[in-house]
Amino acid sequence: MLCFESDYIEGAHEKILKRLGETNLEQLSGYGNDPYCRSAKEKIRKACSCPQGEIFFLTGGTQTNMVVIGAMLKSYEGVVAARTGHVSLHEAGVIEYHGHKVLELPQHEGKICPGELEAFLEGFWQDENREHMVFPGMVYISHPTEYGTLYTRQELGELSGICTKFQIPLYLDGARLGYGLASRDTDVTLPLIAQYCDVFYIGGTKVGALLGEAVVFTKNNMPKYFLTIVKQHGALLAKGRLLGIQFDTLFTDDLYLEISRHAIDMAELLKEGLKKKGYRFYLESPTNQQFLILENKALEDLQEKAAVSFWEKPDDKHTVVRLATSWATRRESVEALLELL
Amino acid sequence: MLCFESDYIEGAHEKILKRLGETNLEQLSGYGNDPYCRSAKEKIRKACSCPQGEIFFLTGGTQTNMVVIGAMLKSYEGVVAARTGHVSLHEAGVIEYHGHKVLELPQHEGKICPGELEAFLEGFWQDENREHMVFPGMVYISHPTEYGTLYTRQELGELSGICTKFQIPLYLDGARLGYGLASRDTDVTLPLIAQYCDVFYIGGTKVGALLGEAVVFTKNNMPKYFLTIVKQHGALLAKGRLLGIQFDTLFTDDLYLEISRHAIDMAELLKEGLKKKGYRFYLESPTNQQFLILENKALEDLQEKAAVSFWEKPDDKHTVVRLATSWATRRESVEALLELL
Amino acid sequence: MLCFESDYIEGAHEKILKRLGETNLEQLSGYGNDPYCRSAKEKIRKACSCPQGEIFFLTGGTQTNMVVIGAMLKSYEGVVAARTGHVSLHEAGVIEYHGHKVLELPQHEGKICPGELEAFLEGFWQDENREHMVFPGMVYISHPTEYGTLYTRQELGELSGICTKFQIPLYLDGARLGYGLASRDTDVTLPLIAQYCDVFYIGGTKVGALLGEAVVFTKNNMPKYFLTIVKQHGALLAKGRLLGIQFDTLFTDDLYLEISRHAIDMAELLKEGLKKKGYRFYLESPTNQQFLILENKALEDLQEKAAVSFWEKPDDKHTVVRLATSWATRRESVEALLELL
Amino acid sequence: MLCFESDYIEGAHEKILKRLGETNLEQLSGYGNDPYCRSAKEKIRKACSCPQGEIFFLTGGTQTNMVVIGAMLKSYEGVVAARTGHVSLHEAGVIEYHGHKVLELPQHEGKICPGELEAFLEGFWQDENREHMVFPGMVYISHPTEYGTLYTRQELGELSGICTKFQIPLYLDGARLGYGLASRDTDVTLPLIAQYCDVFYIGGTKVGALLGEAVVFTKNNMPKYFLTIVKQHGALLAKGRLLGIQFDTLFTDDLYLEISRHAIDMAELLKEGLKKKGYRFYLESPTNQQFLILENKALEDLQEKAAVSFWEKPDDKHTVVRLATSWATRRESVEALLELL
Repeated sequence: MLCFESDYIEGAHEKILKRLGETNLEQLSGYGNDPYCRSAKEKIRKACSCPQGEIFFLTGGTQTNMVVIGAMLKSYEGVVAARTGHVSLHEAGVIEYHGHKVLELPQHEGKICPGELEAFLEGFWQDENREHMVFPGMVYISHPTEYGTLYTRQELGELSGICTKFQIPLYLDGARLGYGLASRDTDVTLPLIAQYCDVFYIGGTKVGALLGEAVVFTKNNMPKYFLTIVKQHGALLAKGRLLGIQFDTLFTDDLYLEISRHAIDMAELLKEGLKKKGYRFYLESPTNQQFLILENKALEDLQEKAAVSFWEKPDDKHTVVRLATSWATRRESVEALLELL
Repeated sequence: MLCFESDYIEGAHEKILKRLGETNLEQLSGYGNDPYCRSAKEKIRKACSCPQGEIFFLTGGTQTNMVVIGAMLKSYEGVVAARTGHVSLHEAGVIEYHGHKVLELPQHEGKICPGELEAFLEGFWQDENREHMVFPGMVYISHPTEYGTLYTRQELGELSGICTKFQIPLYLDGARLGYGLASRDTDVTLPLIAQYCDVFYIGGTKVGALLGEAVVFTKNNMPKYFLTIVKQHGALLAKGRLLGIQFDTLFTDDLYLEISRHAIDMAELLKEGLKKKGYRFYLESPTNQQFLILENKALEDLQEKAAVSFWEKPDDKHTVVRLATSWATRRESVEALLELL
Repeated sequence: MLCFESDYIEGAHEKILKRLGETNLEQLSGYGNDPYCRSAKEKIRKACSCPQGEIFFLTGGTQTNMVVIGAMLKSYEGVVAARTGHVSLHEAGVIEYHGHKVLELPQHEGKICPGELEAFLEGFWQDENREHMVFPGMVYISHPTEYGTLYTRQELGELSGICTKFQIPLYLDGARLGYGLASRDTDVTLPLIAQYCDVFYIGGTKVGALLGEAVVFTKNNMPKYFLTIVKQHGALLAKGRLLGIQFDTLFTDDLYLEISRHAIDMAELLKEGLKKKGYRFYLESPTNQQFLILENKALEDLQEKAAVSFWEKPDDKHTVVRLATSWATRRESVEALLELL
Repeated sequence: MLCFESDYIEGAHEKILKRLGETNLEQLSGYGNDPYCRSAKEKIRKACSCPQGEIFFLTGGTQTNMVVIGAMLKSYEGVVAARTGHVSLHEAGVIEYHGHKVLELPQHEGKICPGELEAFLEGFWQDENREHMVFPGMVYISHPTEYGTLYTRQELGELSGICTKFQIPLYLDGARLGYGLASRDTDVTLPLIAQYCDVFYIGGTKVGALLGEAVVFTKNNMPKYFLTIVKQHGALLAKGRLLGIQFDTLFTDDLYLEISRHAIDMAELLKEGLKKKGYRFYLESPTNQQFLILENKALEDLQEKAAVSFWEKPDDKHTVVRLATSWATRRESVEALLELL
């Protein structure tokens, strides 16, 4: 079976496993208070050109959104997000369960539009009844988005400017951040993200780690007693070293970007191969997630030999499926898939 | 100043004040355990032709939505509502604050469409990823809606059938229920609502009472220990008699419907007068809320002598305003307003 | 039946009903934005000698505790209270339901001891593991307490000093505040409370009103967008006038204290009469709640002709019952009760 | 430095790391839907003699308490626990943050007393005011307790009987369960726990794993849509394999018990050695946590060469410290510590 249904079907990069083995019997303090966590944080601050960055390691994307959004919003505030944002649709209502509304904006290939954001915020502040409504307290974007698309430097700058104007933080969900940074078609870098966003996270689970996401607060704005807040969400790992060692490895010798680039190479190989064969894509994605339009019959045949993700049905005869490559995708698998299709 | 901005600008119907005075020094048990509450419940059960109805009195609409929706949903469920539903927009996020997502459907003059509801529910149950999503656990409608419109008997039946099929309760927000029942253009009655809805409330605050809403559970489905749940939301009144006496009065000799009819008469008088003068309405409302389209300049002039509610701006030159009549609106006020316009 | 089981078994003081009647058909803005609310706030500020006081009217004691404590605590904080505090025991867990732990201290006739409070706070801040614990974020006291007892000026000053030292607010639950202020055995005044407490509330429900509590923030510390927070708890009354008119009446010509004094007079009459007859009290209460120790058989006989509240059983043969007087207690009722016993 | 401050200072048992390496590049479904999770569950069911057991893997103890307690309680219920229970004191209020009160009972060397539990539950159900109070909805015990002590078979049976009588579940927190089962002084087995408890968890983090706890629902009582509930708490791991592989290894060839026995051997070696030297213990613990009473000066000296946990101060001159052994404790370290003391 060829597996392209997601980017979290393998374990971890071999260098990570190796480091876990080497350090296994060292006796280290718990809860992130160990030298590997400290070293990883220092390397991330450097990679972000953000010396004042405050970093905390968590275990998964939904958990990270839960903790960060919950910690930064006031009780009467909600988070603004695209209708297709991960927090809007695919996190089992974790934001609402913790007390906050997701204020949905239209999505454009997974992205929100700066102009629409500004109009929404202005509309709110001009509404005489706003005290009976949910206050917009934060803007959430994912980069890459759930459709594999990327914001441009220009768009990020505009979003950042709007958030500054309305004095609310801009939060970037980087569950697949490596694949965004390594794209051949982006002008966005890690330092730029650290400059434009008030808080963001660098995804590990989908980019080489067993588990783990690194939250970066960029403006001396980590909420007070954040460790307690994390604990209160059941999200504090006793053996924090498990996260520190992984991120320390990923941010040594540019490993994070290097393995991300491999996923992009595999995605481009796949995309070009399929285009040559006349396949159409649902949209143009410059990252590791590709959204292919297949005739229903072709999909049925494919599924006997390859695993892909159902995405949506544009019409009765066709289906959009997602193919995801990752740091672990082998070239032979891509070639075999191209043979199949 | 002529006041048409809402239907809660006066106190209570004189018969209510009279009863409060007459019973004032009787010594009665607290928390709703008094003969006036019992009598009011019995009268409401009769008016609903619902002998098994379980009734609880609360103090306001948002509070009622908070308690009922919170008590009936499981933690992983959300409530389906129109995008313009009161719970979606104008309750400061009370539903999300208490842990549940409002799953928004398109609105059609304030109403949800049975076909769209069914498609949404079917889509959810067919989605392979539904365990990562919010489960639709209840359907919320308002009747009259926030735009003054009414569901038909046919529509209510269809909504009820769909809820039965998917085994989720149908909840009707009747903050202005009297004005819906007394409309000249409705085939919906209180017994019909009790038959089709699993739970609904009869609004008192906007229909003659100082405060108070009567929740009716129609299918032996009042949540266990509901009094404790109410208390836990800070919504249990020590002097429950204050609510019981008011509803007992409103449901004596049909007072609730009688005073609602007066509001409808005043709304019709206003509507006809304005139509004669060539004014246009944003939509056709058969209840006490009327949505008038005014040129901006005309609105400015009007506001010097009359209070109305801003609703929205259909274009740069016009404004939609809401005019609300109520049980207390005097004919002379309507006539004076018609003179002004 | 002679009713002494609680202080909320009658309606409202006649002057309140009269004012409600006189103002009934005035057209007034909703949500507390009316002249009666404004006038009531001004009178309360004067009575408290607290010109900067910010005041908000709510409908009941549990609701007020829910909103005030919820609004003032950070997510990782809890409220310190006596083990017998109303928030600890008799509010159906409303504080925990809204996310906060009640950190319980020992009670001494219903009161907390300043020394024990200070030791607790110091212990917390010295604990190396405190980041894994609930932070004490507020101190809650009731005055009168659930046992009818009162803090002294000296004790309030000490509690206030400790709260200032640890930079957390002192909150006083005044559900029966009138009966505390009118006690013959107190050196605490309303201005003193306003000086020592960061926030407190003046109870109306149990002291002459139909419903209503007036929260007073004394240090320019009302939480931002408090109206929205109130709404989000389902606690915002559409017809805010109902609360404003009542408190305006209660704070006109000292009515609040005058009617409270009557309750104290009746309680003293009862207490002296019973003492003369040789009855013992569970503790010495200087307010309207009296805790009488009865032999079980005597209680049985009594209950045929009078309603009292069961409190606790000190041993197999005796029962402690509560007798409550109020602004509405008639002298003849007290005399009749004394005859019975 | 000799490290005895806790049982989570090392990584994982070598067999676990080996299995992670061997399976690393297998492509497996996410969210626990993989053959390793299935195999681990089957082995745990066998070890528990509980063929109907339903098992879910989570990442840490506080998270597990949060999810299990939150999922099993109704909104108006609280969890009964010892005053020193982990959920009461050391989880940053995670239970209250998620809406439930911890109803505290006295502790006896960390344990609750069946008789006191029964009296508490009976008292609640006899209280006429119980509808204004928090309903006891579950009983929480830890085994071993936070003081290293163990319930006996007799006590567990009694607790179970009381829970059955009052129809509430008994939940056992087994963060250190292995060290309880491997104690030389226990008559409690895994099948017995599965028989007496409605739900419990087998701790991995402190017993050989990198992270991970296995929740076992023993009576076909796993809450419906539990995966969604877990996700809603941010507790669902994308790469569920990481937990499955570890528990599969721990429950192969009795590894879990075998490594637990080693920790007990080391604890006994330490205890006997110290007793011989005349040291006193705070209480008699039959598991891996030992609570030693030291003179303050002796502690100061010790801390230069060994890390231990501060526990409490019984008087001015002495300190109680905790020494914890684990699966990874080396005999030489214990001997070195004995030399030091």
